[in-house]
Amino acid sequence: MSDEITRPVIAVDAMGGDHGPAVVVPGAMANLTADSPYQLAFYGDAAAIGTELDGIASDLPVTVVPCTQDIDMGEAPASAIRKRPDSPIVKAMTHQKAGNVQAVVSAGSTGAMVAASLIILGRLSGVDRPAIATIIPTSSREVLLLDAGANVQCTPEQLVCFAQMGVVFAREIMGKAEPTVGLINIGSEAKKGSELTVATHALLAQADLCFHGNVEGNEIMRGPSDVLVTDGFTGNTVLKMVEGVGHFLGGVARRPDLDSDQQKAFGTVLGYMQSTFTYEIYGGAMLLGVNGISIIAHGRSSAFAMGNAVRVAWEQVHADLPARTAAALS
Amino acid sequence: MSDEITRPVIAVDAMGGDHGPAVVVPGAMANLTADSPYQLAFYGDAAAIGTELDGIASDLPVTVVPCTQDIDMGEAPASAIRKRPDSPIVKAMTHQKAGNVQAVVSAGSTGAMVAASLIILGRLSGVDRPAIATIIPTSSREVLLLDAGANVQCTPEQLVCFAQMGVVFAREIMGKAEPTVGLINIGSEAKKGSELTVATHALLAQADLCFHGNVEGNEIMRGPSDVLVTDGFTGNTVLKMVEGVGHFLGGVARRPDLDSDQQKAFGTVLGYMQSTFTYEIYGGAMLLGVNGISIIAHGRSSAFAMGNAVRVAWEQVHADLPARTAAALS
Repeated sequence: MSDEITRPVIAVDAMGGDHGPAVVVPGAMANLTADSPYQLAFYGDAAAIGTELDGIASDLPVTVVPCTQDIDMGEAPASAIRKRPDSPIVKAMTHQKAGNVQAVVSAGSTGAMVAASLIILGRLSGVDRPAIATIIPTSSREVLLLDAGANVQCTPEQLVCFAQMGVVFAREIMGKAEPTVGLINIGSEAKKGSELTVATHALLAQADLCFHGNVEGNEIMRGPSDVLVTDGFTGNTVLKMVEGVGHFLGGVARRPDLDSDQQKAFGTVLGYMQSTFTYEIYGGAMLLGVNGISIIAHGRSSAFAMGNAVRVAWEQVHADLPARTAAALS
Repeated sequence: MSDEITRPVIAVDAMGGDHGPAVVVPGAMANLTADSPYQLAFYGDAAAIGTELDGIASDLPVTVVPCTQDIDMGEAPASAIRKRPDSPIVKAMTHQKAGNVQAVVSAGSTGAMVAASLIILGRLSGVDRPAIATIIPTSSREVLLLDAGANVQCTPEQLVCFAQMGVVFAREIMGKAEPTVGLINIGSEAKKGSELTVATHALLAQADLCFHGNVEGNEIMRGPSDVLVTDGFTGNTVLKMVEGVGHFLGGVARRPDLDSDQQKAFGTVLGYMQSTFTYEIYGGAMLLGVNGISIIAHGRSSAFAMGNAVRVAWEQVHADLPARTAAALS
């Protein structure tokens, strides 16, 4: 393995996710070449990682950082961060804070990733609460949804900050010249909705943003705007409903009243949907608003998803996203 | 027209909805026969209703109640109720309160229907806040979702009451012997979620109900329980997302990367979905917890939907739903 240290380092939690090193290690390396612009550092059980690296070309820019601890999915995140300094997430995040790592990718506990990012990296100046952002595929375009679950309760000011961070992401990473922002709400009029959405609507309308207005549930999957902001409870429910559409169609496809032509048509549609509308293409969610790069891959991530999570991390490193976000907020 | 008055009367707002009397009147009468167990009373502009009734068999149990006022969709509901006593919704609800009408159906303003029901009919004993309930189709069963939008903010006790009212509806109207209850939440564990959902989970687990536990967004459209409770903001967003799946698939079907086989398959699937998963089958939403029967049809209701809204009203009259709900809550 190369021990070159001049390239940016993407730290990968080799132990995270349902499948562990056997899927994470080859998956994360899927797009890696000897002259990749970044190097990978696998954090976790050195023997288990070594088994996966065995026989892989020695000129690839990969290092291993042994860790002796791990965080269970069920542990309370904040206490786990304190008690497990030698776990992959905490160690990698500490190395990012010190400047030796430029991004951390994990398919482990979302709560631990959020807590470690907050406690170790800290927030960007101007950010009250970081948000989990995810790209959701819609029939017309990719939409950045935030908050997808970091903050169950939010203030109007926090939602405006989510919108500003989302716009930077949409511009720098998704290539949208002038990203539009929508607010998830239960009516189209400015005065409709909860106290939170009415107050947020008023602030967004005054902010220096391309505010598209309120977006109701039936419009979400049609892609009404580039960025969609909401509180973490609604956002998490919306995200999971979008993810559940495929399973819903799969269930309908097994209904006994379908004739053979309909069954065949459902098979074709499901095949298209599964290849086009999969979270695996997007690699994972990201925590926006912390002083670093934190990619939260799905616990069920396949090798394909892990490869994309590393790509997403690299895109953010390459774009210097935290600095650009901080600049936009200042 | 028959003027028999011994049968229960279902009042229909002839002026409500996007299409007015030309669709509402024939639609509401679609299943009416001379010996129907109920009679219809159309409330609204007598001339406009008369035009629609012209030439219809004179032995059908239909009456007309002329109204000289109407409520605009944009009016603030509570003040509209006070200012427009001779509008179809207010007049019909007043007649229900007096016992001359047994149910009111309207495709007009949801806000006006909720306000008129609350102010004129009042709440059932034991009900703090009535809820809008709707049946949503899922891949495995029909699910009663409440609150679908009447109460943007709720307390845990109110959500428990929604669950109790939903169970009565599922048993008496949907024919479920022992209805199960789920709570929409952003995690499966009892302690996950917002303050509202954590406290509600604890109350539901102790209540005399078949509590299935938390239901996350990805499970909703698979039909995890017979009754699903949530606050009105989340419920309205969930309902509209379910309603939006067809439009989403329609948008995907027009993508340029689809080949002709895929286009054909999408056409077949969309045809099946549109005939099977349409709100029109369920006629409309209903307000549970008021001292009467209040059916809120979709503003876009077709004649088919209006016919089903009348059927739904009759089912609730026939089951004596308000009295059964009150008995269960006492």
